[in-house]
Amino acid sequence: MNSLPSSLKQISLFLERLPGIGEKTANRLAFYLLRLPEADLKEFSQAVAQLKTKTKLCRNCFNFTETEICDICSDEKRDQTVITVVESVLDLLSFEQGGIYNGVYHVLHGRIDPLDNIGPDDIYIDQLLKRVKSGVSQSHFVPTKVGTTLGTKITEVILATNPDMEGEATAVYIKNKLKIQSASWRIKFKISRLGYGLPIGANLEYADYMTLRKALENRNNF
Amino acid sequence: MNSLPSSLKQISLFLERLPGIGEKTANRLAFYLLRLPEADLKEFSQAVAQLKTKTKLCRNCFNFTETEICDICSDEKRDQTVITVVESVLDLLSFEQGGIYNGVYHVLHGRIDPLDNIGPDDIYIDQLLKRVKSGVSQSHFVPTKVGTTLGTKITEVILATNPDMEGEATAVYIKNKLKIQSASWRIKFKISRLGYGLPIGANLEYADYMTLRKALENRNNF
Repeated sequence: MNSLPSSLKQISLFLERLPGIGEKTANRLAFYLLRLPEADLKEFSQAVAQLKTKTKLCRNCFNFTETEICDICSDEKRDQTVITVVESVLDLLSFEQGGIYNGVYHVLHGRIDPLDNIGPDDIYIDQLLKRVKSGVSQSHFVPTKVGTTLGTKITEVILATNPDMEGEATAVYIKNKLKIQSASWRIKFKISRLGYGLPIGANLEYADYMTLRKALENRNNF
Repeated sequence: MNSLPSSLKQISLFLERLPGIGEKTANRLAFYLLRLPEADLKEFSQAVAQLKTKTKLCRNCFNFTETEICDICSDEKRDQTVITVVESVLDLLSFEQGGIYNGVYHVLHGRIDPLDNIGPDDIYIDQLLKRVKSGVSQSHFVPTKVGTTLGTKITEVILATNPDMEGEATAVYIKNKLKIQSASWRIKFKISRLGYGLPIGANLEYADYMTLRKALENRNNF
């Protein structure tokens, strides 16, 4: 690797630290950067330098934002009474890309994973409980302010953590916490979990038995 | 995608322009950048901004370099009389990583590809011919200067373009040009092509017939 000039090598080594990028890919990307217009590189460079100072977490749902409250939480057209709980902003984007959901979110930024030393206090579960509680207790008295969902009555919490062991455990943990607390608040809201089964376009031949079991359990009249 | 703050979106959109990176990967990478230390991002940002001004092509072999002549061409320990012709700097790196070659290179920065509108004049073939010629004609009179191979007698040109249609066509084109010119210079040097056959560790069952044919043609006494 002595044959790469240091400027290129520096970029290549940095890119190699990114997930899913090995040495060869890093080199290829660095070479590609070299072919881009200078202005584009300057612009990208500036964006990278400012990234951490500009981006923060939404005070309400912990989505990435440049303002105090993110675009979704401050969108009056969205149903602020339904909260979908996701593990990461990437999961949130999956919903948004489909345009299939009109409620709001709560981003946990992780999942309970004892093997990785991540407990319930390491992710934004407490903030979810507080958010639901503040909604429940204030909504009947305080008018909903635009630009914040604090004070909005929550009608449903959809647990959309991933359908694997850690995601399932996180969902169960949150469900129990919500049930205990909602009992003490004496107010009811729905708690639901995403439906699991065969993905659209799947082939039964290649489906794993866990998915098939879920598909059987969740079968519908036809 | 409205749900991403503009600073993140800008970086994600840029990364999406890179080869092999789609929208989801670009988002994942941008989120990963957000978790890196500020200092590392600043350093990377600077490297990107300076990339194009700092990096140029070696005057001799057209490898990437920050000086006039690249490290390989100015390395006295390398055999400056053997030139390996490669399509790209990535191919050069493959040789260098193995540490299997001690000669110098000539980077074409492409290959003849009529479908892509790339002719012989669009890649560094002329410069190779001139380089070989200058070596041949000057070597007997001018002492070899350190830091440049101009004036070095060339003993062999190894054509290491890729073993596909365009690479083969480029190799044949260069071979013919070199043969015609070497006849007029009345000096002989070897022209060779990389050996092709089964890759090490390969499985005959999965080998394509073109490779098998080459392996048969290149069979050795055992």
